[in-house]
Amino acid sequence: MRPNIILGRIFRVFFALLMTTAAAAAQPDPLPSWNDGAARKSVLEFVIAVTTDGSADYVEAADRIAVFDNDGTLWSEQPMYVQLAFALDRVKTLAPDHPEWQTTEPFKSVLAGDMKGVAASGMKGLAEIIAVTHSGITSDEFTAIASAWIASAKHPTTGKPYTSMIYQPMRELIDYLKAHDFRVFIVSGGGIEFMRPWTEATYSIPPENVVGSSIKTKYEMHDGKPAVVRLPDIDFIDDGAGKPVGINRFIGRRPIAAFGNSDGDFQMLEWTTAGEGRRFGLIVHHDDADREVAYDRDSAFGKLDKGLDEGPKRGWTIVSMKNDWKQVFPE
Amino acid sequence: MRPNIILGRIFRVFFALLMTTAAAAAQPDPLPSWNDGAARKSVLEFVIAVTTDGSADYVEAADRIAVFDNDGTLWSEQPMYVQLAFALDRVKTLAPDHPEWQTTEPFKSVLAGDMKGVAASGMKGLAEIIAVTHSGITSDEFTAIASAWIASAKHPTTGKPYTSMIYQPMRELIDYLKAHDFRVFIVSGGGIEFMRPWTEATYSIPPENVVGSSIKTKYEMHDGKPAVVRLPDIDFIDDGAGKPVGINRFIGRRPIAAFGNSDGDFQMLEWTTAGEGRRFGLIVHHDDADREVAYDRDSAFGKLDKGLDEGPKRGWTIVSMKNDWKQVFPE
Repeated sequence: MRPNIILGRIFRVFFALLMTTAAAAAQPDPLPSWNDGAARKSVLEFVIAVTTDGSADYVEAADRIAVFDNDGTLWSEQPMYVQLAFALDRVKTLAPDHPEWQTTEPFKSVLAGDMKGVAASGMKGLAEIIAVTHSGITSDEFTAIASAWIASAKHPTTGKPYTSMIYQPMRELIDYLKAHDFRVFIVSGGGIEFMRPWTEATYSIPPENVVGSSIKTKYEMHDGKPAVVRLPDIDFIDDGAGKPVGINRFIGRRPIAAFGNSDGDFQMLEWTTAGEGRRFGLIVHHDDADREVAYDRDSAFGKLDKGLDEGPKRGWTIVSMKNDWKQVFPE
Repeated sequence: MRPNIILGRIFRVFFALLMTTAAAAAQPDPLPSWNDGAARKSVLEFVIAVTTDGSADYVEAADRIAVFDNDGTLWSEQPMYVQLAFALDRVKTLAPDHPEWQTTEPFKSVLAGDMKGVAASGMKGLAEIIAVTHSGITSDEFTAIASAWIASAKHPTTGKPYTSMIYQPMRELIDYLKAHDFRVFIVSGGGIEFMRPWTEATYSIPPENVVGSSIKTKYEMHDGKPAVVRLPDIDFIDDGAGKPVGINRFIGRRPIAAFGNSDGDFQMLEWTTAGEGRRFGLIVHHDDADREVAYDRDSAFGKLDKGLDEGPKRGWTIVSMKNDWKQVFPE
């Protein structure tokens, strides 16, 4: 490489860093809810490295894909997944039309509020609950039901709407990435049609940027009108090794940054960070019993075990909610 | 409604129309390859109606979703689907490693260039061809193979690259919609991973805005690296009644405008135009034997029969390539 090309490149990087420093002095902090520390620093360094023209790690805007898990990464997943709370509520709503549920499991336990009984019904019971609460209606009808529920339901311990139980530092991160021409997607084990009605208002992530688990659907005439009808069969589980599959299918490009909190996100982070060029992986560790809930290796929801051991070895950032976050929820 | 509110609304519409007219006088024609006529007029009227603030048909930018079929709508599908030409070429490329293909169908016919023999092998034969040419490799490898092929392959009758056998009037339409804050998606019966490598350069439609047919994939370690591997099983056929299902799954909103050319697009147009508010459906009719190919009710590829009869009754625009297009292919 000719010396003046090298000098030009050095100058551009120097100039960009100078501008970044100057801009930082003049502009408001993009991550005000993050404490100064290694986690915050790793995010800022990555974004500057891949978005600064002339940087050795520069990535074209078209390839700036970032993926976020939802449950436990963007909003609370304790004491149970929000969608499970929705399904249990929906069983109660539908119960008057199903007197047989009073005596048959898993519905009997759901109606009695007996979570141990629900758990005892296992995967088969859960599949039955999902089938009766999530299928047999059109996609438009389900959207209306999910929208109405999310607008009125309250978190069992805080009494707040679920959409205010989101993590403010992560929302800032989404905005920061978008401001740097990243395209941001949710890639969640949750139901794709359960999330889509509210992700745009809550995280500024539109429906088409949401990847999730799905049940089978069918196009047919329904009450004389064409409709997409939801069937009682699982189509795709967007969790674990399913996440890279879902990303490949829905997005079609390997992300350069991935954000998760549980071992269900492990393969998504593994696949993202194994790509060529500079990559970024981040795990939110729920270690803040005072402001949220402390859980990891033994949790029924959002178990984090392998990621805690393997993540640091692979260069992933482990966020301590307790130490790295100034604030957990929005004001 | 108070009179001044009504007056205000009328004024805004009047002002918007005035500005549109003024802008039209000052700006270049957004659809220069379209002849003046009913088809062109229907497009312009629809876009003005749904994007003019104060219009009774106004649609928020977030809901401006437009979907385009690919084969026969955006590029040529004669004398055979481009992806079929790719698969046949790929059989020839792989043949030296498969001496048994010289004596077993459907490969024997493919290698002999005997299209009647290939057709005689039916769906089973086609599935075998797709399996050996589209699976058993990683998604990244397939992308590289499809990219290399599309960059070098030539159309059998014109000798041009396939990506220059695209319809210039439709490309203008995509740009026109995007300029009015539409989000534009391809929804094609073609393979999703076959299209994604070249749609951005060809139509300015990025990979994540491409919906198509797919085979099953699996995340696993491949030569010591994590990869998404393509399996020899069909996952989803994005054609006919599958198109509304694919749109619902990938985009999550019902489009307000749909563009197709064959009966495989019928349900997509039906579902799109059955929604509330102003909607738009358009069918490209291949009636131009001089500049392209004339075909419809009896074609093996891109059969258009029901749409020709039903489309006009449903208010869909039928485009005559011969009469409505000034130019078919890019210069």
